[in-house]
Parts: sequence; structure tokens; C-alpha cells
Amino acid sequence: MMPEPFRYSFRVRLHDTDAAGRLFFGHLFRHAHDAYESLMAHVGLPLERLIAEGRILLPLVHAEADYHRALRQGETVAVSLLIDEIRTRSFAVRYRFETDDGQLAATARTVHIQINGDGTPAGRLSDDIRNALDAYLALDPEGS
Amino acid sequence: MMPEPFRYSFRVRLHDTDAAGRLFFGHLFRHAHDAYESLMAHVGLPLERLIAEGRILLPLVHAEADYHRALRQGETVAVSLLIDEIRTRSFAVRYRFETDDGQLAATARTVHIQINGDGTPAGRLSDDIRNALDAYLALDPEGS
Amino acid sequence: MMPEPFRYSFRVRLHDTDAAGRLFFGHLFRHAHDAYESLMAHVGLPLERLIAEGRILLPLVHAEADYHRALRQGETVAVSLLIDEIRTRSFAVRYRFETDDGQLAATARTVHIQINGDGTPAGRLSDDIRNALDAYLALDPEGS
Amino acid sequence: MMPEPFRYSFRVRLHDTDAAGRLFFGHLFRHAHDAYESLMAHVGLPLERLIAEGRILLPLVHAEADYHRALRQGETVAVSLLIDEIRTRSFAVRYRFETDDGQLAATARTVHIQINGDGTPAGRLSDDIRNALDAYLALDPEGS
Repeated sequence: MMPEPFRYSFRVRLHDTDAAGRLFFGHLFRHAHDAYESLMAHVGLPLERLIAEGRILLPLVHAEADYHRALRQGETVAVSLLIDEIRTRSFAVRYRFETDDGQLAATARTVHIQINGDGTPAGRLSDDIRNALDAYLALDPEGS
Repeated sequence: MMPEPFRYSFRVRLHDTDAAGRLFFGHLFRHAHDAYESLMAHVGLPLERLIAEGRILLPLVHAEADYHRALRQGETVAVSLLIDEIRTRSFAVRYRFETDDGQLAATARTVHIQINGDGTPAGRLSDDIRNALDAYLALDPEGS
Repeated sequence: MMPEPFRYSFRVRLHDTDAAGRLFFGHLFRHAHDAYESLMAHVGLPLERLIAEGRILLPLVHAEADYHRALRQGETVAVSLLIDEIRTRSFAVRYRFETDDGQLAATARTVHIQINGDGTPAGRLSDDIRNALDAYLALDPEGS
Repeated sequence: MMPEPFRYSFRVRLHDTDAAGRLFFGHLFRHAHDAYESLMAHVGLPLERLIAEGRILLPLVHAEADYHRALRQGETVAVSLLIDEIRTRSFAVRYRFETDDGQLAATARTVHIQINGDGTPAGRLSDDIRNALDAYLALDPEGS
């Protein structure tokens, strides 16, 4: 059975748009990461604590997005997140961005690798992270 | 009697911070404008409608901020807005940014001038705008 | 024979970094697009003219990046661009981001589709665009 | 005699603009800080070194800008910087933003205070900073 996604929403702001009148594509990743930060806080692993403690960092090694329709200022966007995949020392998050009327506006995927505070790769994903994310693990990973 | 301010809040995100570990000062203006967009939508003048209609634009002619203490990732910030001043063809908004514990983190002020769709200055602020903002007009303008 | 890539460079600024001390991943796309804007201006198709004329728009339908090593404030990054693929109504740009010492820091790829000013898909890529990009067409497309 | 200002330039990019077709006001501060970072590197005090060493930080306590005319995508903007004022533990930078044709598009001013690595205020501006900035000290401070 598919887990319930983590939900997040945002409103497209003037500074999100560009002179072509639509969301500047790069800003979608900012909103994706905001949603991911909320997920991590929700599962008890706020990024600010990880950064402050300095033992575990989870930098992105990959990010991608597909844009299905333009987003414009004032639109409310519902984001749903699932963990796409958990590997030895990395995990992937997938995002769906939908407008109020249920239309799919975009999808995205980010891959995060665990490194130690000194920048060396972690041997394996910490149990805390693995356990926290497990509740959101999708059962039909969309590999890239 | 002082009017009740318009209230807005946001969370400081990783991308708001810089390598010095604190909110990058310029991003405060992005959040100020988000709050202002919310105020304008609340009073029935959503900026996206003004921009789409193209008859009235309200570009900023001045912006300023004072920073009282560092804001860090994960902090929730309450913004309260009041209209600082309404002039012939412009108005000013003032913002207070407070953290959860009630500490003042920053203040800001933006001045918006009404121009016509073709870029020429408006003769005077439209009645719609004047009336909409009047409910938030502070009684002790802090001129700059 | 491989064409000479289009070259662009930028310096990592404080606002590009986050509290983890490294370039926030999403900002790489801003720099990628800056490089793409420079390429388009260089080949005689400045985006501002396309947007002003309103007949042709080239929104992104896909963007992706792989991050090989952290970028930090003050580093100079050399970007080289090639056209990865030209299709009926779209084209793809690939980017390599290298630091001063020649290390690969990241790669990216963006796919742009031609649409008409009214938002409908173009029948085919305009000859102007096709011809302008042809000089940078890589001979070993990395499809995704 | 007035010192020669420090000069910096940038091009207005698509992501700098918003749906109203002009530079989003808040982004001017990003460019101002880029120019300031360049100045600091030029005088031998690159911010990345100060941040890495962690003994001296120079956070902003005030920022302001006046906008004289809209900036649009593709425009090249020349920024000239002067040190507006050097005080016991702070200094101010002023910026002029001009377009190619010599028109004044905006001015800005930022005030930076020296703090110690632990966040406490510095007793006084370090001699290194004072000496480095002195060559750019304007002789007609525009206090605010």
C-alpha cells in the first residue's frame, strides 16, 4: 500500500516570477527544498540541528524537475513529497506540484547523500535518518 | 487609536541563510514583499490582478531595513505591517519582524508610487488603493 | 569534430551559499540560466528581445543537475555550454561547471520548448533558433 | 578631493526581473552586496577569509535604496562604490547604479558593524579594515 505523502503548500510570489510572467524555473527548487526542510522537521530531523551539530550533512548530489504548465503569481501550489528510494548512503525525494484545481504543474526529484562533518562520505545512512524517512517510502520508486 | 496591524509569518529557510550562518540581509526584503503581497490580496487588491490589468502599477521608489539581531534557519518570524503614510501618489508600508519569543529582529519600510501602465506617474493614488489601505494607516508615521 | 563550447564564468557570492557553507544547490540553476542568456545574446537571440516581441517563448520543460563537489564563496567557476540536442520543437543545453584548478564541480542540462506567444506549442523550432544553436551542437548527445 | 570610486558592473538577468517586467527591488541589494564583496576582495579583505577565520564578522545593521528608474533584463549596470562613513565600530558603503547611457537608476547605502566571532560587538573597527577602506572614503558623507 502506498504511504500517505507529506504535504506542503506555498503561494507563488512576485519575486518567483520573471519578465515572461511565469515562475522562473530555478525557483521551483527553492520551494522543493522548503518542502523537504518541512518534512525533515516533521520527522524530527530539522536540518538546522544537523548543521549545528556538524556530524551529519545531507548535501544534494542530484536534482531534476519537469515542468508541465506555467505557474503564475498568486497561485497556491500544493506539494506532496514521498521518499523515492533509500540506498546505502543516500536517499531520494520526489515531489509533485499541483495547483488548486488539481492540475499537475511540475514534478521534481532530489538525491541526498550523507557525508560526515569533515566532508568525507558516510559509510552508511544513519539509522535515525533511515527510520525517520521509512514512513514516507514510496513502493514504486521512479528511478531516473 | 492605533489600528491592528496586518499579520504575516514565515520560517527562515536554508536558502535564506548564508555561509555566515544568518539570514542574508537582502532576503529580508523578499519576505517583506511577500507580506505586502498578502496584505494587498487581503484588502482586495491582489498585485497579480493589478499587473494583469496593466492600468496601475505600484513600483517601489524606496526600501530600507534595520537589522537588530541575526535570524537563523528554522526560526519562525512574525511580521506585522502598518501603512506608515499615504501621500498624493504614494504610500509607505512599515514592517516589524519578531521572533517567537517576542524579540524584535528587524524593521523595514517600503515606499510605493502609483504609475500608469505606460510608466508615467499617476496624478494621484487611486481611490481603491487609498480606501483599501486606510484601515491600516498608523497614526504616528515614522518618516525617514 | 566537437565544436568549441560557449564559455561563461561567475564568482560564487555570499548569497549563493547557505548555513552549511556551500552553494545552495538551487542557485546553480540561476547561474546555468545566466550562462544560457549570455549564449543566446551571443548568437543574436537575446531573450529580452524574444520576450518583448512576444511571438516566441522558450520555457524550460526539464532541468537537472549533478553535484560533484561543494562550491564555496569566492570561488570562480568556469561554465562551458554545448547544445546537447535539437529536436522538432525543443532543444537541450548541457553545462559543465569547473573550478579554477580544472576540477569538475557540477554538470547540468536544461530542455527548452518553443511555444507561441499565446502559450500554444510551436509547430517546429524557428529557423533562426535552429541555425543560431547549430554551431554549438555537440556530436555526442547525452540524452537523459 | 574626492577619491575615485570602486567600480563593478553586472547585467540584469531574467531571474532579476518579475512579472511586472522590471528588476524586483529586493534583488538590487544582492547586486549591491556582490559589488561590496568585490571591493572587499580588492582591498585584501575577502569576506570568505573573514568568515573562515571567524574572528571578525561585518553584518549589516542597515540597508536602504532609492529607485529612480526601472531596470530591465539585458541592461548592463555600472555600480560605483564609495565608503560613506567610518565610525568607531562600523562603516557605511554607498552605491550608485547607472545604466549604459549614464542615467542614474538607483542608489543604495549599507551599514556594516564589526562583531566578534561570538556575536558580541567589537570594541572598535580593526585597523586592517579601517586602513583598507580609507582609500575609498568619500569626503561628503551622506548620512541618513
